[in-house]
Amino acid sequence: MTINGKFPGPMIRAKAGDTIHVELTNKLHTEGVVIHWHGIRQFGTPWADGTASISQCAINAGETFIYRFKVDKAGTYFYHGHYGMQRSAGLYGSLIVDVAGGEKEPFHYDGEFNLLLSDWWHQSAHEQEIGLSSIPFRWIGEPQTLLMNGRGQYNCSLAAPFSSNYSSLGKCTLRGGEQCAPHILHALPNKTYRLRIASTTALASLNLAIGNHKMVVVEADGNYLQPFEVEDLDIYSGESYSVLVRTNQDPTQNYWVSIGVRGREPKTPQGLTLLNYLPNSASKLPLTAPPVTPKWDDYDHSKSFSNKILALMGSPKPPANYDHRIMLLNTQNRINGYTKWAINNVSLVLPFTPYLGSIKYGLKHAFDNNPPPENFSSNYDVMKPPINPNSTHGNAVYMLNLSSTTDVILQNANALSDNVSEIHPWHLHGHDFWVLGYGEGKFRDGHDEKKFNLKNPPLRNTAVIFPYGWTALRFVTDNPGVWAFHCHIEPHLHMGMGVVFAEGVHRVGNIPNQALACGLTGKKFMKKN
Amino acid sequence: MTINGKFPGPMIRAKAGDTIHVELTNKLHTEGVVIHWHGIRQFGTPWADGTASISQCAINAGETFIYRFKVDKAGTYFYHGHYGMQRSAGLYGSLIVDVAGGEKEPFHYDGEFNLLLSDWWHQSAHEQEIGLSSIPFRWIGEPQTLLMNGRGQYNCSLAAPFSSNYSSLGKCTLRGGEQCAPHILHALPNKTYRLRIASTTALASLNLAIGNHKMVVVEADGNYLQPFEVEDLDIYSGESYSVLVRTNQDPTQNYWVSIGVRGREPKTPQGLTLLNYLPNSASKLPLTAPPVTPKWDDYDHSKSFSNKILALMGSPKPPANYDHRIMLLNTQNRINGYTKWAINNVSLVLPFTPYLGSIKYGLKHAFDNNPPPENFSSNYDVMKPPINPNSTHGNAVYMLNLSSTTDVILQNANALSDNVSEIHPWHLHGHDFWVLGYGEGKFRDGHDEKKFNLKNPPLRNTAVIFPYGWTALRFVTDNPGVWAFHCHIEPHLHMGMGVVFAEGVHRVGNIPNQALACGLTGKKFMKKN
Repeated sequence: MTINGKFPGPMIRAKAGDTIHVELTNKLHTEGVVIHWHGIRQFGTPWADGTASISQCAINAGETFIYRFKVDKAGTYFYHGHYGMQRSAGLYGSLIVDVAGGEKEPFHYDGEFNLLLSDWWHQSAHEQEIGLSSIPFRWIGEPQTLLMNGRGQYNCSLAAPFSSNYSSLGKCTLRGGEQCAPHILHALPNKTYRLRIASTTALASLNLAIGNHKMVVVEADGNYLQPFEVEDLDIYSGESYSVLVRTNQDPTQNYWVSIGVRGREPKTPQGLTLLNYLPNSASKLPLTAPPVTPKWDDYDHSKSFSNKILALMGSPKPPANYDHRIMLLNTQNRINGYTKWAINNVSLVLPFTPYLGSIKYGLKHAFDNNPPPENFSSNYDVMKPPINPNSTHGNAVYMLNLSSTTDVILQNANALSDNVSEIHPWHLHGHDFWVLGYGEGKFRDGHDEKKFNLKNPPLRNTAVIFPYGWTALRFVTDNPGVWAFHCHIEPHLHMGMGVVFAEGVHRVGNIPNQALACGLTGKKFMKKN
Repeated sequence: MTINGKFPGPMIRAKAGDTIHVELTNKLHTEGVVIHWHGIRQFGTPWADGTASISQCAINAGETFIYRFKVDKAGTYFYHGHYGMQRSAGLYGSLIVDVAGGEKEPFHYDGEFNLLLSDWWHQSAHEQEIGLSSIPFRWIGEPQTLLMNGRGQYNCSLAAPFSSNYSSLGKCTLRGGEQCAPHILHALPNKTYRLRIASTTALASLNLAIGNHKMVVVEADGNYLQPFEVEDLDIYSGESYSVLVRTNQDPTQNYWVSIGVRGREPKTPQGLTLLNYLPNSASKLPLTAPPVTPKWDDYDHSKSFSNKILALMGSPKPPANYDHRIMLLNTQNRINGYTKWAINNVSLVLPFTPYLGSIKYGLKHAFDNNPPPENFSSNYDVMKPPINPNSTHGNAVYMLNLSSTTDVILQNANALSDNVSEIHPWHLHGHDFWVLGYGEGKFRDGHDEKKFNLKNPPLRNTAVIFPYGWTALRFVTDNPGVWAFHCHIEPHLHMGMGVVFAEGVHRVGNIPNQALACGLTGKKFMKKN
């Protein structure tokens, strides 16, 4: 899928405080579409969040929908499809918000580069969807290629001299712009560059490194960090970072920027981009091999990185106590023979009528009005495959009071197979949350809270749970709307790995008609002809 | 795509005069859907014709739409998707209408079989769509398999002993019901069977024959014919036939029923089904080879068959004269570099707001309100590739007066390549037409009408144009509604090979709200929230 004929879609660039006005015309033949503005909180415009079945009706083939919303905070964001598996189909692009006129970033740089990371399959997203919804279950497998700004390598081995992964010698020369050539970063020596990195992968957790260069991490998900230096950076789907890179290496050489798979046994070659020191030719291949990605299951490496991420001094601090706490157990389950992911034993199946309209207009039969479970059995053994006695499909909503400090403890567990527990990056719509801490094993109430970082926890919109671990998040319900909270791995969301929060929907202003023109709200607002 | 988990979809069977009530729930993930009831004229219910952009808004993912319509005439029909290329994706099934209680067919038979013919690609319909809409143009190619009732052969060579087309020996035994075994027709010796044959192929024109058996053709498209005997039968996409077969051959043997490709150089193995004489085992392979399909470009064979098709005595006769005549030139064209089919130099691109609603409610901007061309240049050389000076996209409508006798002369021509002119089966919605005649070369006004058969022309809903030839059709505009008239080859329709007729839309009754809930009618009928 392309936008204005481009893959990835065009970069949208604005200044903090701007109102973005996007007219989306759906030129697909038979499919509906929506676009989510990942990381933008949509204060006052929850209908523009771009989540089908949640904030709006899908935009039907042929229709135009206007997304109009304010970007209130500088940072590195992106946008992507949020209907079916259209993100996997390539529906995404970058969204960069610069500081407002007259404002300054809290760090200096001479130039910037933007890298939008994604993963790519040769099987279409439709076929992937079918496999995931089938008995027997057919998993999508590992991607064929990792992409940076839509470009990657497949049987076209830039790195052939360096890596035995590449079976044939390269057919590509590096002038830039060729079909099978990577995006090239043209840099001047002895400058500081801001590298904006965002991951919209369907599946892959990635590690990025630049040959011979260190990086100073300064921003995550549109929030400033206490700067820290790393040799490589783990980035999960749904996350973004800015790093500063000083081009202080041998200026007669070029250098590889590489990404590789983390957290799953990799079957995908590294993705490569070239850091070209001008005036060298971009065709001059680096002397040093692409950085080697840390071993896929070296979780200590990942945790060490995550634990370095702290808010820049002066950032908003979390309230000291929570008003409401929700425990969310992540399990893989079988429901009627289908393989699913479930949260507190409920696998999310979105309703046809979007929640925002059905809650605002008090429609009774649009979704299950019983409250979903806020906890799970204290006997649950997170180290063993689920016994799975009562897993179900569901579409109930966590109804949250406005202006309430809400804690969410995400609890990881063993998947269906023995000794398997996966990384899941959880993404919250409509909010940033403070990441209060990560822990191993089952969260111990009354004990693990004591280790929470309430001093300088980072604000983010995406945070992972590590295998067999827990992650504690805190946010304030200050944004009337209905907000998805879900694993950002697209097939996992498709398999039910998400929940829905609603807050203060009675305070939501006039929802555009088109966002309501389906299901029960469509019926309600359609006049008799 | 399946219906109720079945491919093809379940057979619908009714009696003439019945009202059929279908509740269609769209369980696709992101795609809209409609279903067209092919051959049913939809008197009084034009909104139930199941054509997206014409009779109704597509049924969005999650929605339920009720098709409720009367079947007024016994016959062999079928149903299929009519949005994007969803028919190619497998969205079809049989619709059989028996004579009303107390009525009799004008021929005798002891039992019946039903064969729904289709063609199958390994590439998905979505990928086909993309190729057809690309520069450079990527044609879908010939099907991998021909199917009868959804079953066909691929690397699973039932016919291996008989045909050098099959490269490996069969792995299948014939018990029936196996994944790679054909549908089996279990017959008793010395009986007469009615074989109902309908073709919903995306592309292939087919020839069907039964080893050692002759067939008597008695019905076409739900209309009775003057019975005639054939050894084999040409059937084009959109057509249906009933033939009577007498099981009067050696009762110790079984016999092949075979279908093969006509009109295009075949790259697809014959499709096979077994006529099993009981009590023989169905695993007993026939002694005689599957009937050989006539040479693909033996058009004389096809024309000879078409010319034998005449209405049963006592069938309704056409009015002697026409009130209105439309000449439709069929050409392949390039428009802005895209490969298209065009009618009188206009390639059909359907509007987003369905015509039925936009015309009924007099909406001005839903489509081009200028009349489309009713003729083409008298200088046009149908024997040469189009010079193509002024081909365009369009969505204008042929507005026909009610109760008017309308003639359509379909004129075939050379395609873009030299010395290529293809067969196109044209299908009319909402009507049967009389096929007044076929001719060679360019239709000669004032001359060729004299050869029209006004005595016993067959009533049909689908008729072909042969390469470089013309076909003359006549119908009476007695059915208020908006009706598609198009080439039934799905990629050709997708490439613009169709026109739209509207008649007496002011007389159309209450269109169901859901059929209007998109585009400009959706806006018109949506209340402010």
